Amino acid sequence: MKTRRDFIKTSALAGAAFSILPSGSVWSRSDNNKVRLGFIGVGARGQNHLEMALNREDVEVVALCDIQQRMIDMSLGIVANSGKPKPQIILDGPQGYKKLLDNKSIDAVIIATPWEWHARMCMDAMNAKKYVGCEVIVGMTVDECWEIVRTSEKTGMPLMMLENVCYRRDVMAVMNMVRQNIFGEMIHLQGGYQHDLREVKFNDGKHIYGHGAEFGEKGFSEAQWRTQHSVTRNGDLYPTHGIGPIAMMTNINRGNRFMRLTSYSTKARGLHEYIVKEGGENHPNAKINFKLGDVVTTMIQTANDETILLQHDTDLPRPYSLGFRVQGTKGIWMDVNRSIYIEGQSAKPHQWEDAKAWLDKYDHPLWKKYGSDAAGAGHGGMDWFVLNAFIESVKRKTAPPQDVYDAVTWSVITPLSEKSISQNGTSVEFPDFTNGKWKTRINQFALDDSY
Amino acid sequence: MKTRRDFIKTSALAGAAFSILPSGSVWSRSDNNKVRLGFIGVGARGQNHLEMALNREDVEVVALCDIQQRMIDMSLGIVANSGKPKPQIILDGPQGYKKLLDNKSIDAVIIATPWEWHARMCMDAMNAKKYVGCEVIVGMTVDECWEIVRTSEKTGMPLMMLENVCYRRDVMAVMNMVRQNIFGEMIHLQGGYQHDLREVKFNDGKHIYGHGAEFGEKGFSEAQWRTQHSVTRNGDLYPTHGIGPIAMMTNINRGNRFMRLTSYSTKARGLHEYIVKEGGENHPNAKINFKLGDVVTTMIQTANDETILLQHDTDLPRPYSLGFRVQGTKGIWMDVNRSIYIEGQSAKPHQWEDAKAWLDKYDHPLWKKYGSDAAGAGHGGMDWFVLNAFIESVKRKTAPPQDVYDAVTWSVITPLSEKSISQNGTSVEFPDFTNGKWKTRINQFALDDSY
Repeated sequence: MKTRRDFIKTSALAGAAFSILPSGSVWSRSDNNKVRLGFIGVGARGQNHLEMALNREDVEVVALCDIQQRMIDMSLGIVANSGKPKPQIILDGPQGYKKLLDNKSIDAVIIATPWEWHARMCMDAMNAKKYVGCEVIVGMTVDECWEIVRTSEKTGMPLMMLENVCYRRDVMAVMNMVRQNIFGEMIHLQGGYQHDLREVKFNDGKHIYGHGAEFGEKGFSEAQWRTQHSVTRNGDLYPTHGIGPIAMMTNINRGNRFMRLTSYSTKARGLHEYIVKEGGENHPNAKINFKLGDVVTTMIQTANDETILLQHDTDLPRPYSLGFRVQGTKGIWMDVNRSIYIEGQSAKPHQWEDAKAWLDKYDHPLWKKYGSDAAGAGHGGMDWFVLNAFIESVKRKTAPPQDVYDAVTWSVITPLSEKSISQNGTSVEFPDFTNGKWKTRINQFALDDSY
Repeated sequence: MKTRRDFIKTSALAGAAFSILPSGSVWSRSDNNKVRLGFIGVGARGQNHLEMALNREDVEVVALCDIQQRMIDMSLGIVANSGKPKPQIILDGPQGYKKLLDNKSIDAVIIATPWEWHARMCMDAMNAKKYVGCEVIVGMTVDECWEIVRTSEKTGMPLMMLENVCYRRDVMAVMNMVRQNIFGEMIHLQGGYQHDLREVKFNDGKHIYGHGAEFGEKGFSEAQWRTQHSVTRNGDLYPTHGIGPIAMMTNINRGNRFMRLTSYSTKARGLHEYIVKEGGENHPNAKINFKLGDVVTTMIQTANDETILLQHDTDLPRPYSLGFRVQGTKGIWMDVNRSIYIEGQSAKPHQWEDAKAWLDKYDHPLWKKYGSDAAGAGHGGMDWFVLNAFIESVKRKTAPPQDVYDAVTWSVITPLSEKSISQNGTSVEFPDFTNGKWKTRINQFALDDSY
């Protein structure tokens, strides 16, 4: 396989590829050649990133910021375990993150806060000349998405949404196969977020998962903020894990783009029934009418005339499944049955075969190289790769492999699906955040084993 | 389990249930107490039904009608093998079926002709006071569907669309579970027709399947007529195998109904590539621009606020799968991974278990009783059950378990999906063919082991 450098050298489109690079980027690099990292939000998710960052020799964790003493204490425990120096601690309410951004020695920030804070924090960080790695869902409205793009373009500061599923081992192997034309021309793809989150959305205010029917002020961790979105919104609230890998396989924003979507939603039953089961019929939360339908289904049409099916299914008892399907003119892969069929290559016509041998054969160079480093990191190792890609991008002063256009294009599915559902399944057009640049950009995501 | 008779006796809604029965039905019954059956169309599919009918002691095959000598000859071979008397043979062009309908001794007809003939043949048969069993897709346009309903209501003659998948063993077991509330309240269901039909759509004019790139006048069997629909139409051309079972599980036309749908379609690549592979780039058919997208996805919203996802995928290399998923507030079943999850009953939280034990436990009474009779019949035995239900309905002079309202409600998905796709994914309202009767009708499909 060509190295990334070879690829860039030999590609006639190299110039176009780099039209996305920030011009006039001025973020600092510390003298010791380490990336100086600040953390905005060190709840459960931020602590995962913190632990991985402390494990790296090329990172110095400079500052942590949160609004809860308990989260700071847990984080300091993680720092202590690592043997690394204690960072600056900022515990100063919701606006405290601005103090972290004032720290000129910080090159880059990891934002892992509630969704509703992401857009403003991303923009403030870019304006403060920080390279931004933000947890998934960067903008909650179409306007926020536009503001994020414009801020990145104006400041020259890159933003990477830390979508980890793009780095899932089987997903990367399949992407590898897509690029080697094993599936032929892409036709139809599926993905989603099908994960019973009832114990995430409700707890007892002490445990992170379950043990009660509380949320909001009486809840803890994600239940404090995430559940409220199910009260007031109906749409695909969490599209990025499904759409990220699919977007990379279909070169979205790089010769292709999302044209429109339509979403349908079911009735809402799961969360109410869970509250009654956990807290009884007289629990105050049993009176709440949740707006989020239990299953939200979204269809997307691309400029290259593929279709993409996304499913959001978080409120019912069900096994975890992102529901991937990648289908082209030569074959099909599905993850729910761990099976594949490639015409002329699979042993029996019209019959599934176990995908394992294919996934092993096409294991992505990044996994071959770093699989042992990633072992033990969150979510089966993929968390290691997404942080690695972010850190390596900062070190190279280059655009991240998932860039600001990807971040907003994937995130905007939520407000568009809300609009479609609220208008009884009308189709809704996607904005073109690249302003036409999608026609000439080329895909640089995970081209080799570099990052 | 209650018998059907008990059910009717004890049900307060019995009167409402029978509002669907034809009034003033006058079809004859022969003296020997056998159903006197005529066949309109004895191609590959009609011959399947013919063979099963000849096997039954309660049926007398009175007449066969087709437009091709070859099909008549094949059918006479089947008759000869059965040892039953030779029926009247009508080989007299496309209008020849009217002579069969003129035969006053015939109680009921099986129609297994090209889709585009179904509506007029169904209506002519009902007007001739025949009980009608018609192969799937009874009307190709919204208007045709309405005409079929009105003809049935006017003549008092019942019509059953011979949708066999409603009788698939696993599907009936799952329906049994749905009715016993194992899945809780229905939330989201999926099904479809995902079947690589390239060898059905093209052949050499001699073989039924494959061996060439011909269709239309140069093709044979289904390729003579079915393929043309892929040239001129884009929609879910074959929805009934997926939607039939789902409609029964969600009581469509019996307390529930389809409200609206939206369809998305991909580009069309599969059929062209197949022609090039089989016939070369210079084959005349390689110039055809097929209108049917390779994968068509349809979402349906019901009055009870479930969503239904249907997929049509017939032009690409892929394993056969109807893609069923039945999901309620307590659990989920999928057929592609042969797995199930029922909260509190499956061994491990958040984990699939093999569905087999559940399917065995809830095996439908009809399969328990008739499984051995059905063994060897087409499509894993389900063909036996659908013909049996038709014949038993005729014998009992009752409405069939899948009636005329079901036939048109399932068939109309095709023209509605064509309309949605042609209008860039707009949502399209369903007609209410029951004219409000859906609110009070009750589900009588396969309530016990009678038929």
